[in-house]
Amino acid sequence: MGIIITIGREFGSGGRELGTRIAEKLGIAYYDREILEEISKKTSLAEEYVTQVIERKPTIHYPITIANSFGIYDNDLNKTQNKIFAEQNNVIRDLATKSDCVIVGRCADYILRDYNPFRIFVYADMESKIKRCREKREIDKDLSDRQMKRYIKRIDKHRRDYYEFYTGLSWGKKENYDICINTSGKKIKDVVDEIVKIFQK
Amino acid sequence: MGIIITIGREFGSGGRELGTRIAEKLGIAYYDREILEEISKKTSLAEEYVTQVIERKPTIHYPITIANSFGIYDNDLNKTQNKIFAEQNNVIRDLATKSDCVIVGRCADYILRDYNPFRIFVYADMESKIKRCREKREIDKDLSDRQMKRYIKRIDKHRRDYYEFYTGLSWGKKENYDICINTSGKKIKDVVDEIVKIFQK
Repeated sequence: MGIIITIGREFGSGGRELGTRIAEKLGIAYYDREILEEISKKTSLAEEYVTQVIERKPTIHYPITIANSFGIYDNDLNKTQNKIFAEQNNVIRDLATKSDCVIVGRCADYILRDYNPFRIFVYADMESKIKRCREKREIDKDLSDRQMKRYIKRIDKHRRDYYEFYTGLSWGKKENYDICINTSGKKIKDVVDEIVKIFQK
Repeated sequence: MGIIITIGREFGSGGRELGTRIAEKLGIAYYDREILEEISKKTSLAEEYVTQVIERKPTIHYPITIANSFGIYDNDLNKTQNKIFAEQNNVIRDLATKSDCVIVGRCADYILRDYNPFRIFVYADMESKIKRCREKREIDKDLSDRQMKRYIKRIDKHRRDYYEFYTGLSWGKKENYDICINTSGKKIKDVVDEIVKIFQK
């Protein structure tokens, strides 16, 4: 098994950009959108629907590992969610065994745990996240700071719920990652340069 | 202002070794023991006594910023503790402005906050910390795993109390650092190589 890097990230922290920069520097694959496309193909569900289900928190709050053993998943939406998560497992494992890669989000750190991935978590303070979202136009630019903050918090809540539901682990807790990187007040390019400089040979 | 790197660390996580390796790689100063020597000189207190006071938690639990404004520090031990902390502030600032450096522990990240240091926190799971302590003989080798665990926890509790007392911040909370590095199951040399590899140009 070669290099597998997984990146968990707070919305607006620049995790995606960090992922693409690392993949570029190392000359290895970067997977994000491709995963959804593959799941869509394999489940015959529309890609948009797959995205929506993945980014939406599951409706029942027991971690899946507990819920499965009590057989309490009987409604159709939960069945679809679990089918998509199972397919996501397969797709991510396939991609990771095919070649060296960087995978952003999607519980990849947990799904690939037997392959010993290098697990990164990227975070920042709220001010920096709002600034980055405005610069990158990731959110409607007409929103006030207060509205943006609410939007960012909502997305991160979904990520947290989704991650914790499917893994039983705490999202963003430093003990679950190999390194955690704070991008507050920094450009992603500079973060990469800064860390290179510190650990240079 | 050049490069200032501060390292906070859990006991047994290898933070000290990481600090010396980084300083060596970058060819810059590494400060640890020297700080205690300087404080000892400036306060005319024995170095051993300084060490003991610094590594021992303060007796009153209000953060110093609050306590000062109520004037509730009137006993001699607390006066000495605060004198030592004040002197530590001066010594660390002097060293940091003199040349590029790595400083391990001693609230240096907080003391130097106006100089924009690069703040690292190093941590590991308990199993790895016990293993590292045995290998490095940092603790009496005849202790059982259970005794070692208790000892490690006690030291970290002191570090936490000391840090939180003097800074008002949470020790080890990822938001207070630029990067957090997990050394569980790894050799420090490999951690450095691993991170270099990931961020190499």
